Amino acid sequence: MPSLSTPVLLEEYGGIARAASRRYLDVHADRGAEYLGSALREYPQRSGRSLRSSLCIAVARCFGASLKDALNSAVALELLHNAFLVHDDIEDDSEERRGRPTLHVMHGVPIAVNVGDALVLLSLRPLLDNRQQLGLRVTACILEEVERMASETIEGQAIELGWRRWNTIDLGQDDYLRMVLKKTCWYTTIFPHRAGALIGTRRPLRAHEFVHFGFFVGAAFQIQDDILNLIGDPKRYGKELNGDLWEGKRTLMMIQLLNVSSSNEREQLTRFLGLPRHEKSEHEVRWVRKLLDHYGCIDYARGLAHGLAGAADKEFEVAFAGLPESRDLTFIRELPTWVLTRS
Amino acid sequence: MPSLSTPVLLEEYGGIARAASRRYLDVHADRGAEYLGSALREYPQRSGRSLRSSLCIAVARCFGASLKDALNSAVALELLHNAFLVHDDIEDDSEERRGRPTLHVMHGVPIAVNVGDALVLLSLRPLLDNRQQLGLRVTACILEEVERMASETIEGQAIELGWRRWNTIDLGQDDYLRMVLKKTCWYTTIFPHRAGALIGTRRPLRAHEFVHFGFFVGAAFQIQDDILNLIGDPKRYGKELNGDLWEGKRTLMMIQLLNVSSSNEREQLTRFLGLPRHEKSEHEVRWVRKLLDHYGCIDYARGLAHGLAGAADKEFEVAFAGLPESRDLTFIRELPTWVLTRS
Repeated sequence: MPSLSTPVLLEEYGGIARAASRRYLDVHADRGAEYLGSALREYPQRSGRSLRSSLCIAVARCFGASLKDALNSAVALELLHNAFLVHDDIEDDSEERRGRPTLHVMHGVPIAVNVGDALVLLSLRPLLDNRQQLGLRVTACILEEVERMASETIEGQAIELGWRRWNTIDLGQDDYLRMVLKKTCWYTTIFPHRAGALIGTRRPLRAHEFVHFGFFVGAAFQIQDDILNLIGDPKRYGKELNGDLWEGKRTLMMIQLLNVSSSNEREQLTRFLGLPRHEKSEHEVRWVRKLLDHYGCIDYARGLAHGLAGAADKEFEVAFAGLPESRDLTFIRELPTWVLTRS
Repeated sequence: MPSLSTPVLLEEYGGIARAASRRYLDVHADRGAEYLGSALREYPQRSGRSLRSSLCIAVARCFGASLKDALNSAVALELLHNAFLVHDDIEDDSEERRGRPTLHVMHGVPIAVNVGDALVLLSLRPLLDNRQQLGLRVTACILEEVERMASETIEGQAIELGWRRWNTIDLGQDDYLRMVLKKTCWYTTIFPHRAGALIGTRRPLRAHEFVHFGFFVGAAFQIQDDILNLIGDPKRYGKELNGDLWEGKRTLMMIQLLNVSSSNEREQLTRFLGLPRHEKSEHEVRWVRKLLDHYGCIDYARGLAHGLAGAADKEFEVAFAGLPESRDLTFIRELPTWVLTRS
């Protein structure tokens, strides 16, 4: 079990990053975007965990930076994360986010597309404001990291959307992990580590630094997220339970099911996955959900997530070797366990 | 009449900028985004005018830079412009772009949202590559300009979307021009001028430099664009004729019509504008189209566009005073006339 420090630190750093993000959003709203302001603040106002921005701050502090040094990058991450959520929810036709209707359900697709764009482009502001605190050279290095992270994220999203559009069935664990490395890990864990280390050390990073640790933790995080979509507590989960089944997502469990089910079942599953959301029935969703249990797909996914978390534990000792003990270092060390035990 | 040099220069600089953009897109596609590549290249491959990137190159050259100095910024503009088109077409539910179906009509909204995001984020790459050619300080200044331009554009788009969502009727010429300044002028004319001047002079710009000239030319351009939507040659126009009427856009002509029509007509127009696209009838669209002629709204818009072009002619003498004659300077001088006479 992780110590109590993880939620406390998430609460503290996340609160600071969210408050700073809101100041950036307010400036924009004050400039006269009367039609944008409230929709722009909608997702950032809903209580999220702010894992990504907290991680960026904690890593920077581990490497000797102050919280203030990392704050602009943390704000950019908050804004980008919310931008990705707004557009992901349109792309997945999701109905709920953080316990409330998704933005496009509330305001329609046109305004939601525009709000996502605004949040992406607003993230450039704090990244340019890094100059005052970090100087031009480190500011440019962080922008380089943002560019790499953003293009990996977009590619990962494209892979997943492609699977659904062409109803791709012939997938294995490797395909899933490659997609998750791009879609989830780069912006959730790899970038926060790389940006944090850059801010702390002020030296250029090697191309693969923190990529292994970030991948192991991020992939475990995504698998756990997908598991919670099936078995989470409806009151605490914040998204629609079984939403991934309605949306036809190729989660690790679904890929495993396609590979172990009978050829007859596989045929039915293929048809089910190819249907648009509104043509799927409650009955079919329940059937798929039972099949996942029947073939032990959730346990299989739990097993892989635990393996990844174990690999992350080992990689931590390499990536953070020689750093002095601190609350921030403890937070990062306990992250692999936390991602598996969170609900 | 503008001389023949305008189309020749657009063809030359536009061709160079489009070819350089494709190289950036290819790098991305080669990195393994098998599901993204062809959709990403779809709009950039369709023949556009590349007005914005050509303008950036021409202004930079007027101020003493080489074409190569301006090329990365021109590429970023190409990518951003195509990104805006992809997302605008979703937001407006447009059916045609550059003579072919829009991207979301071809591939669905999810993939089109993702492609637009990819094009936005890819534009960061050439902007960071500016470092080799222009150094860190000018690179950062251009990024500052991009940030300002992008946030103006998004705000302008939000204003227009808001008018449609809340079926806003009570609008005047000033509201229209403020929206167009933000939505169109910043990225079409103001940013290309400011970036070009920055690249040429390597000195920081004053806050309002080129804003007047860019506004006058850009607003005339947008009004002419809206006029062509009503009276353009279907073979050459590339978008659906009367598409703005189907989409319920608040063009200058529509705003004028709402202000001069009878109260009974205004009531019917209000109802028409509030209908979603698929609930409007061919018959109603023809009725509105006739009303625009009846009240001389197109002539009214032509008059304002001519006035703006005249103001641009005067402003040109101020903004470009003292620069040596060149083909590039001639291109910019003739721009206000070109935007009115193009078809």
